[in-house]
Amino acid sequence: MEVMAEKSLLMLSTGGTIASVNTKEGLAPGESGQDLLSLVGNIPYQITVKDILNLDSSNIQPEEWQLIAKKVYQYRNDYDGIVISHGTDTMAYTASMLTFMLQHINLPVVLTGSQMPITQPLSDAPDNLKAAFAAAAQCAPGIYVAFDRKIIRGCRSVKVRTTAFNAFESVNVPPVAEITSDGLVMNEQPKPVDGDCILNTKIDTNVALIKLFPGFDPHIIQAMADNGTRGIVIEAYGIGGMTYIRRNVAAAIANLSRAGIPVIASSQVLYEKSDFTRYEVGRQALLAGAISARDMTSESAITKLMWALGQGMNVEQVKQFFQTDVAGEISLK
Amino acid sequence: MEVMAEKSLLMLSTGGTIASVNTKEGLAPGESGQDLLSLVGNIPYQITVKDILNLDSSNIQPEEWQLIAKKVYQYRNDYDGIVISHGTDTMAYTASMLTFMLQHINLPVVLTGSQMPITQPLSDAPDNLKAAFAAAAQCAPGIYVAFDRKIIRGCRSVKVRTTAFNAFESVNVPPVAEITSDGLVMNEQPKPVDGDCILNTKIDTNVALIKLFPGFDPHIIQAMADNGTRGIVIEAYGIGGMTYIRRNVAAAIANLSRAGIPVIASSQVLYEKSDFTRYEVGRQALLAGAISARDMTSESAITKLMWALGQGMNVEQVKQFFQTDVAGEISLK
Repeated sequence: MEVMAEKSLLMLSTGGTIASVNTKEGLAPGESGQDLLSLVGNIPYQITVKDILNLDSSNIQPEEWQLIAKKVYQYRNDYDGIVISHGTDTMAYTASMLTFMLQHINLPVVLTGSQMPITQPLSDAPDNLKAAFAAAAQCAPGIYVAFDRKIIRGCRSVKVRTTAFNAFESVNVPPVAEITSDGLVMNEQPKPVDGDCILNTKIDTNVALIKLFPGFDPHIIQAMADNGTRGIVIEAYGIGGMTYIRRNVAAAIANLSRAGIPVIASSQVLYEKSDFTRYEVGRQALLAGAISARDMTSESAITKLMWALGQGMNVEQVKQFFQTDVAGEISLK
Repeated sequence: MEVMAEKSLLMLSTGGTIASVNTKEGLAPGESGQDLLSLVGNIPYQITVKDILNLDSSNIQPEEWQLIAKKVYQYRNDYDGIVISHGTDTMAYTASMLTFMLQHINLPVVLTGSQMPITQPLSDAPDNLKAAFAAAAQCAPGIYVAFDRKIIRGCRSVKVRTTAFNAFESVNVPPVAEITSDGLVMNEQPKPVDGDCILNTKIDTNVALIKLFPGFDPHIIQAMADNGTRGIVIEAYGIGGMTYIRRNVAAAIANLSRAGIPVIASSQVLYEKSDFTRYEVGRQALLAGAISARDMTSESAITKLMWALGQGMNVEQVKQFFQTDVAGEISLK
């Protein structure tokens, strides 16, 4: 039997449903990380708890991403792994952004939360925390989400259910690990990284995330650019279609692209890749200068764009960067 | 054995992948409805074909919705059912809008298409067309999508896969019928409608569909309103969270609402209901005047909003209308 009792883990608590209590305005974060830990049950690791935020994750924003990234970076050599308790609403965004802010991370960093507050008897919180601790102790270095017995690459996680316990899915790649009666069963792990962990929290949040729909007025894109938007992710149709008759979205993209504003084309369809080369309606978009997000999640695409713009990349550099796999967020073959 | 040979169905062809041929610019619609029919195989119905459009569905827009609705209305008493062949990219939008433009429809109207052109040997087109014909012959009056052995209420359909054959899902309600070795197996059918079918194609397309993300600048909403946007659907987080610290989305909604611009709050999470009353971050949005889309799809929410604005409804009337179940698009209990 494996002896793991000596593994030392850090838990950073940030609030979320998992730590919520009833208030007269509805559920709001209230419990501390130590409160959470006291309700988990059997944990075969040595856990240190630090409360760094106490927010509903609808209020976790770029400033909090930067704080969390800095805390992870600060403690990265002091523990075997880090667990971050976090609300579910924006967990996939935080996990995606940490992927870019903490490249070459040297230990497992596992976000988790729950669909029900830990104080409720049927809560999924204890199981999710146990899974997160196991992943933080045993997985390869990387940023993950642990939820409902699955360990998902952070940059591939998407929240797909509002109330069921299987709230998160690993989009377009299998989970990194799963909990079965054999314990934590590893699938393919991220490749070992070369070089030291880099903390880089510079981002530009002047971006927009647009979902295409029939009748969409392309002038809105221009209006956004005129109002200071520095980059746009457009969720196109299906495998990569954009309107070009009457309402010419492709032409609007071309104008923005020429004006130095990168436009990333992803798909509003949740699963599977986009391929803008297959249909004429997609090729028109690429010809106009749209940068394909391939099989990335929207959460990864928008955070990758913010990070790229934060580095001062121009349109061509953003394009190159979106053809680069930073940490498993994109399938290039 | 049931005798169905005398059922008379109309097929309206509009283009799409199902009718696509290879061109040097990529796949583009080319086959006629009669071409499609000739490749389906055994069909136990009498089919009349009319080609009304020949478009990739990325180019099917409000003007085409109006045309299709008018054609359905024109032929509604001449056939037992109508099948519409259509590209998959915007099929869920067209099906949702037809639900509002053709209230009290008096026959089954079934949209279908395919993930591979019908001319390719392994295409899913023949099976999908056969399912659509069966549904058009046997289902209760209503607007449906037939895809991969499932008959889905049009206003509950969402495209969730870009390449696999099971491209569509019935979101938050079971499919209306499924194809098994027992044939077309009916689940719960829409209730019979009272009154005559109403054709009402008046819509206002000056709307926007925004997906919330951490860092989203609420000024963008105001900029849209200043640029002529008459109504907005915001895909909030999870069960219904919106940011209100630093970037106060709720306050921006309140401003728009006061200015006569309705803001519909739906969820960017695909499955299950939204409930803005559960968390404080959702209540803030409701207090600000956001109108909850409950468990509607974004496709239904944006088309319902266009239709409501087309009727000249004010914010309060839009709110009432969104608390009304027009044709199965929303669960009210």
